Amino acid sequence: MQIAVLLFPGFTALDAVGPYETLGRMPGAEPVLLAERPGPVPNDRGHFSLVAEASLADVPHPDVVVVPGGPEANLPRRPGPVLDWLRAVDPGTVWTTSVCTGSLLLGAAGLLRGRRATSHWTALDVLASYGADPTGERVVTDGKYVTAAGVSSGIDMGLTLVGRIAGDEAARSAQLLLEYDPQPPYDAGSPEKAPADLVARFRKIYEERRSVA
Amino acid sequence: MQIAVLLFPGFTALDAVGPYETLGRMPGAEPVLLAERPGPVPNDRGHFSLVAEASLADVPHPDVVVVPGGPEANLPRRPGPVLDWLRAVDPGTVWTTSVCTGSLLLGAAGLLRGRRATSHWTALDVLASYGADPTGERVVTDGKYVTAAGVSSGIDMGLTLVGRIAGDEAARSAQLLLEYDPQPPYDAGSPEKAPADLVARFRKIYEERRSVA
Repeated sequence: MQIAVLLFPGFTALDAVGPYETLGRMPGAEPVLLAERPGPVPNDRGHFSLVAEASLADVPHPDVVVVPGGPEANLPRRPGPVLDWLRAVDPGTVWTTSVCTGSLLLGAAGLLRGRRATSHWTALDVLASYGADPTGERVVTDGKYVTAAGVSSGIDMGLTLVGRIAGDEAARSAQLLLEYDPQPPYDAGSPEKAPADLVARFRKIYEERRSVA
Repeated sequence: MQIAVLLFPGFTALDAVGPYETLGRMPGAEPVLLAERPGPVPNDRGHFSLVAEASLADVPHPDVVVVPGGPEANLPRRPGPVLDWLRAVDPGTVWTTSVCTGSLLLGAAGLLRGRRATSHWTALDVLASYGADPTGERVVTDGKYVTAAGVSSGIDMGLTLVGRIAGDEAARSAQLLLEYDPQPPYDAGSPEKAPADLVARFRKIYEERRSVA
């Protein structure tokens, strides 16, 4: 089962690595990191690169597609090879998935129209502009489309999918090997739980970035 | 504040990326990925590389050292440049940290003697062989040495340290931006919680690997 993790300049590393470490540990999984061109792909802070082993054309029939997110300005949402690839491979996938603002890419490719989906909490309105029905859940499954909330939610999404694809024991094995028994030292991981002034400040920053873009 | 994330061939990606995404988002943080030689460093499954921007010699005075882990056979625990670097820079660090079996490297460098520490749950006995006092906690702080349990615990460790270094608000900001509100779909993330037969099977596999190595 080929798991295609799509990279693009300015992606967020944990968005890609969470699903990779969970789905990639499934029995029979063949993860592949791909990008428009093979080679190092810089992350959202520019100095950290993951190496794409394959180009888009090298991966015409993935079983699972994983689209990580990144700051909105970095997402290759204009007509071009990335959206073309997403549209071309989607009919053949068993699962098409995203983490964080990766769902905006799926949306821009026209794949989430009329579907329940999620994204980073700051981007739910943008997701709606692609015709999706945004929910506040952490992992949203609508048919074969699985979208996850911000960054770290890719681990929960990955384990959920391992369970669906390979069964509960495979998912529990991956969880135990990753020692995923989270104990966050703070309780500010969602806009409902974080202090209201912090949430308001980030909403403002993200809206300003959008109005400039 | 320079955050030095040490890479070596065969490291586990999430071990490095969890602390990077948390500590690296601190105000004033300057994360740097380094390795014995700059360039792509393959992960524990060989086909996924992170690019080290710097060599060991390029980073003589890091403020924070982060040592990820990997399968025990991959850890550069023999006398050589990696252990030499750890011993050389440690007296100047504010925090010396590890994720997963990265603590075995700190142990091999002689930095954990007589200290409370932790590691991946399968490696606690090996950690003890370096004179450390292993605990079952997820994040263990003893003086300036902070060790975390398996793989995903690096996120909890990173947020803990952001709080210590930059304050609670910086830690809550990082948590909110990463949307770290974990909702694992299973409850098998520690040997205490996972099914006993699964735990026993993995213990056996890890012991066999050790006896072969």
